[in-house]
Amino acid sequence: MKELKEKEDKVLVSFRDGVYDITEFVHAHPGGEEKIRLATGSSIEPFWNMYRHHLTAVTGRLLETFRVGNLIRAEGEVLDLNDPYANDPERHPALIVYIQKPFNAETPVALLGDRFLTSNELFFVRNHLPVPKVDPKNYKLEVSLEGKDPIYFTLEELQTKFPIYEVTATIQCAGNRRREMNQSKEVKGIAWQGGAISNATWTGPKLRDVLLYAGIPESEVDKTIHHIQFEGLDADMEKSYGASIPAQKVLNPSSEVILAFKMNGETLPLDHGYPIRAVVPGTVGARSVKWLHKVIASAQESPSFWQHKDYKGFGPYTDWHNIDYTQVPAIQELPVQSLITSPPPSAKRVVLDADGLLPIHGYAWSGGGRGIVRVDVSLDDGKTWEPATIHPNQQTYGKVWAWTQWEHRFKVPEGVKEVDLVVKAVDSSYNTQPESWGPVWNVRGVLANAWYKIHLKVDEE
Amino acid sequence: MKELKEKEDKVLVSFRDGVYDITEFVHAHPGGEEKIRLATGSSIEPFWNMYRHHLTAVTGRLLETFRVGNLIRAEGEVLDLNDPYANDPERHPALIVYIQKPFNAETPVALLGDRFLTSNELFFVRNHLPVPKVDPKNYKLEVSLEGKDPIYFTLEELQTKFPIYEVTATIQCAGNRRREMNQSKEVKGIAWQGGAISNATWTGPKLRDVLLYAGIPESEVDKTIHHIQFEGLDADMEKSYGASIPAQKVLNPSSEVILAFKMNGETLPLDHGYPIRAVVPGTVGARSVKWLHKVIASAQESPSFWQHKDYKGFGPYTDWHNIDYTQVPAIQELPVQSLITSPPPSAKRVVLDADGLLPIHGYAWSGGGRGIVRVDVSLDDGKTWEPATIHPNQQTYGKVWAWTQWEHRFKVPEGVKEVDLVVKAVDSSYNTQPESWGPVWNVRGVLANAWYKIHLKVDEE
Repeated sequence: MKELKEKEDKVLVSFRDGVYDITEFVHAHPGGEEKIRLATGSSIEPFWNMYRHHLTAVTGRLLETFRVGNLIRAEGEVLDLNDPYANDPERHPALIVYIQKPFNAETPVALLGDRFLTSNELFFVRNHLPVPKVDPKNYKLEVSLEGKDPIYFTLEELQTKFPIYEVTATIQCAGNRRREMNQSKEVKGIAWQGGAISNATWTGPKLRDVLLYAGIPESEVDKTIHHIQFEGLDADMEKSYGASIPAQKVLNPSSEVILAFKMNGETLPLDHGYPIRAVVPGTVGARSVKWLHKVIASAQESPSFWQHKDYKGFGPYTDWHNIDYTQVPAIQELPVQSLITSPPPSAKRVVLDADGLLPIHGYAWSGGGRGIVRVDVSLDDGKTWEPATIHPNQQTYGKVWAWTQWEHRFKVPEGVKEVDLVVKAVDSSYNTQPESWGPVWNVRGVLANAWYKIHLKVDEE
Repeated sequence: MKELKEKEDKVLVSFRDGVYDITEFVHAHPGGEEKIRLATGSSIEPFWNMYRHHLTAVTGRLLETFRVGNLIRAEGEVLDLNDPYANDPERHPALIVYIQKPFNAETPVALLGDRFLTSNELFFVRNHLPVPKVDPKNYKLEVSLEGKDPIYFTLEELQTKFPIYEVTATIQCAGNRRREMNQSKEVKGIAWQGGAISNATWTGPKLRDVLLYAGIPESEVDKTIHHIQFEGLDADMEKSYGASIPAQKVLNPSSEVILAFKMNGETLPLDHGYPIRAVVPGTVGARSVKWLHKVIASAQESPSFWQHKDYKGFGPYTDWHNIDYTQVPAIQELPVQSLITSPPPSAKRVVLDADGLLPIHGYAWSGGGRGIVRVDVSLDDGKTWEPATIHPNQQTYGKVWAWTQWEHRFKVPEGVKEVDLVVKAVDSSYNTQPESWGPVWNVRGVLANAWYKIHLKVDEE
């Protein structure tokens, strides 16, 4: 921690294995700026043990938004058997890991373009808390109309009592591509490179069927029932992970929100919510709650930190000094997005193919079931455009939950040795991606969907 | 017409009272370029009378996209009593008229910001054909499953047989703000300034209820029924106006597509579809078919010209030489939009208010029922932004069909004498408006939703 002390313009602290830059937060500390400055360059754990109201998931999550690095443990260190992360599974070594505890890792972008379905092992993982240990025999899903007695479903009941659906849906983290936004101007959070998005086929009953069976009155949607709250079994010091979505998204007869127990035909993996997760197609990943154990039909949004103090899209004029979470709604549907997966973000050079053309491919996706009608690509930084070929994904208008893969081959003009590749997509509402980062920059680094760009040298083979 | 002849680089022709620049079309003329050039500088009516296959609505509408002006009739000219436009009503003199026949006029932008509901007299009018004359006693709406016997509803039945709904919905022309796109690079079509959008409360039965009553099988939606086709009573030489929308948009139980017989509490005006029009909230105006007389549930889209050869959003690389209508889907939902209505587009100067602040206000809207979550405004051409105050419009999440009005007062920095006002809105899917025209420019000049800008000199009062 000595090095931390030396960076005197910054207020750096550690907590457990994390290093946090809380410079921008100190002035807003409810206990006063002076007290929090006492922790500069050291662990805040002793302070929090003294002022125990800090030991809540809410404070923990707020702190997490300031993480800038991790403490490296000494070799041979003994594992803590009481480690809440002891149930975390082995992960595929190809995943790009940003945080070990809780586990946060993206799919390498280069792998995303290769298959329409992302394999379970390579599907990005965004955990907020330790992976909970669930005994499938004792698992119960609690379903209630707020204020009324709940009804419980066993895993077997969820798997056999209702019609079972398969939904192919892309799930994207609100912070996907934060790295690029951060490069334009600093934001807080994991610097996802574009691989915090994956696509899978999910299997399970419709949540609508389960709620109707449990007696949730459909006629009350948009009257007294406005939100469907979810609670996961993943929990920290005080609270579980939770989120909610608009009630009509679930109780609408055409809803395809499901309670998934399979992912790409296999038992739901531990990291993806075993034994049951919500899958809310077209909506930010944070609402597809994993290890689901409670569903509440309510007039209110989920009371969770993640619904009220995170996953919100602020304007470029909001910073840590004037932030007011109550003024901005929780993110639900995500905007149109696209990325070049080949060449990958790390590429510096590209070799023309046998026909002397420059091949590229990638993904495009939009929230709310809006399909992709066009993908425009450029090799001169957006001055001129060409249409990419899109692979139709066969989903129905308004229910295009899966991404669209696309490809293109550029004729590179004679003498051009460097190119600025750009991709932008257009969804079925003709919304398109913003040109640059400044106007969509936001303090939490979410909703990063400006034109994707990559600069390359061209080698003729 | 003499002046037309003189512009030798252009191929200008007239037809009835219109003047058309068909320079970009001549090479694509199916009958050959030489023949069509014979009409240069003159009326094409004699040619079309000879080659009578031109006398169709399809050709007429294509020609209309090239209109650049109108022939001025001599004073005292006698009205043609067989004029198909004889049923056209008197219009409010405040409307800004672009074409008299068919009538195309926008609401002055300065008036749009003053009220949440646009009055019937000032609501923009986009007619494709003459206003048809309908005897309400003989009016019948024909409803059919394609290939089956139709069922008919009288006006009285539509008004009394079903539950009646009120829906407040903004209707926007696909070409709204084409003038700005045209200024960046020429496009074809009426140069709407930003007033081809208005908001009203519409009253009538849900089309879903009428279709179910007529025996359209809900269970076939997305199986054999994919589109609901509309046909209007407005007709030209050969065909009626027609359009279609995705079937689930109508037959979904939460659908709010209605058959309106009232507009803002009054009988539907002649110009807005008397006695019955479709109102398809959240969708481009072209699909809210006026003077509705046929509804067909079908596997196919409407066969009309306007569904297949117009109202399509091409990429910036498509021009009249490489256009292929079959490659692009028909526009349905529109993207997020916003405009400053005060100061109006014509303003050159602005006077600070009593507090020394610069007040602005305007509208924002998005397709598909997505509400407006944020309106960002700038007085330095988008370098920095401030949040505008939005007036909540009280509509339900996912069914925000009406526009959102907003306002802001800028503190103009000392010494600043000129400002570049900009507005951009963000919808509930966090889609935002594109920064500039180039990347969204399209040959038909539709879907114009780049940042709205206005340059003003500032006078201190």
